[in-house]
Amino acid sequence: MTSFTEKLAFGVQEKGPLCVGLDPHLNRLPLPLREKTTDLSSPSGRKQAAEAVREWSHIALDAIANRVAIIKPQIALYEQLGSAGLAVLEEVVLAAKKAGLLVLMDAKRGDIGSTAEAYAKAILDDDGPLACDAVTLSPYLGRDSMAPFIKRCGEGEKGVFVLLRTSNPGGAEIQRDQAQSAEIVQRWVDAWNSPLVDRHGLGPVGVVVGATLGEELSKWRNALPNAWFLMPGFGAQGASAIDCRSGFRADGLGALINSSRGVLFAQEHEEAEYAESPGDLIARKTDAALDALKSAATPH
Amino acid sequence: MTSFTEKLAFGVQEKGPLCVGLDPHLNRLPLPLREKTTDLSSPSGRKQAAEAVREWSHIALDAIANRVAIIKPQIALYEQLGSAGLAVLEEVVLAAKKAGLLVLMDAKRGDIGSTAEAYAKAILDDDGPLACDAVTLSPYLGRDSMAPFIKRCGEGEKGVFVLLRTSNPGGAEIQRDQAQSAEIVQRWVDAWNSPLVDRHGLGPVGVVVGATLGEELSKWRNALPNAWFLMPGFGAQGASAIDCRSGFRADGLGALINSSRGVLFAQEHEEAEYAESPGDLIARKTDAALDALKSAATPH
Repeated sequence: MTSFTEKLAFGVQEKGPLCVGLDPHLNRLPLPLREKTTDLSSPSGRKQAAEAVREWSHIALDAIANRVAIIKPQIALYEQLGSAGLAVLEEVVLAAKKAGLLVLMDAKRGDIGSTAEAYAKAILDDDGPLACDAVTLSPYLGRDSMAPFIKRCGEGEKGVFVLLRTSNPGGAEIQRDQAQSAEIVQRWVDAWNSPLVDRHGLGPVGVVVGATLGEELSKWRNALPNAWFLMPGFGAQGASAIDCRSGFRADGLGALINSSRGVLFAQEHEEAEYAESPGDLIARKTDAALDALKSAATPH
Repeated sequence: MTSFTEKLAFGVQEKGPLCVGLDPHLNRLPLPLREKTTDLSSPSGRKQAAEAVREWSHIALDAIANRVAIIKPQIALYEQLGSAGLAVLEEVVLAAKKAGLLVLMDAKRGDIGSTAEAYAKAILDDDGPLACDAVTLSPYLGRDSMAPFIKRCGEGEKGVFVLLRTSNPGGAEIQRDQAQSAEIVQRWVDAWNSPLVDRHGLGPVGVVVGATLGEELSKWRNALPNAWFLMPGFGAQGASAIDCRSGFRADGLGALINSSRGVLFAQEHEEAEYAESPGDLIARKTDAALDALKSAATPH
């Protein structure tokens, strides 16, 4: 049995630190598919939209499968289409795994007791409906709320990424400035991870840390040398490859840089890019992002 | 258009402050249904389990529809059956609304930007797949993460319940003792609610506060006179009706006391209770809970 963190380190060493966020924003889909998503008010309309999302998801998967090690589907963007959307997500996750990708479900779940256990079953367990490799978690309910997921890190091959410091404008207030909740989360993660580190000194309990945090990013890197950082905010959301650099450890490992819209869709002012096929566009943008990140992941 | 808080106040005045948590714990279902939920490892097995959950959910709905004003389905317990489970939940929510119940989805969602918007669409919007009246939210991502939901409180007929102080053993550490994050959440809720209060002086932005918090409960009641309190922890989880009393305002309004397992299932040591039909058991236990709560909701 290979642990999640070993698989991730292997994949990142081979393919680079880019994680592609599989985010089917309906209003950004290529035009012929977008037109099928205009009626979300009826089960049949949602089913038709889910078919378009399915088609687009497979195009995206085909384009990125051999380019990156890991993808991060956003469950909310499938769930907004109801059970039809979730059925598509189940199929897409299965296809991604068959293509050799690690799948990190961006779900930001957090609950207690038997409910947390149900979420862990739903998202992580290999005999469950999604059977992902890892999941994002929200920590407000406290340390015990994460026990079912941490258990699956220790006993299974699974990983988690706990929200630590996010880069949205409102994140700092509750996480850092008025309540230092991020420091609590950091201590939990460090304690969970320490007994589970692999030969690279990295454990399966990672954190979500915004790529746009500037100097604060180094602080968290130093505080959590054993944790993988999932870093949103690169590209479309404002952080450069240089900004990402301090999220990596000196050996060039330990960071996953997420890009979603930046690699999946034509920018609004470059709609003409769809002269190339949607798959070609994603492949080209993925390669460009990987290239930009090379310097950030160089051992320093 | 009647606001969520007005509908809730009307319902609670008529039916009492009990909220029934619709939690299909597979291992607690009545035996003939439980036996259909043993294989969750294949799509067909999950579909069969979802059928059992559907049947049980309708039994429960029939038993409680005329007894209480509001139900709180736990989305995780449906999601563990994947898209088949979510399809059943969509049907159950629709049936509950047709029966005149308010539906509060226990989802504890929390994300940012367009993702938060997608969750709001998925759970609250009337033309969406679930179209609930209210939802529980987790606040770790900060004030801006809740904007799409608060907007639907102000402009629509919707409500939210933000996690404030939970009564699980690990809640206090991050919410109160080591990081006072609950105090931040309390200030947000108060600011959101103030411009939206109804003629009872209650707004659509409520909080989740454990019924087992003892004296701390009075503190939150005084700090948030305009907020509905959704209070888990009554009955099976340890709080008595007297413990719940300080969650109510002096006028006897402002608190929703949740009970899930306590009213839905036979206790393990009373398996013989299933000599009565599952529906009769739920009806009897719901009546008993309502009766026990009468004194707690008396104006004082």
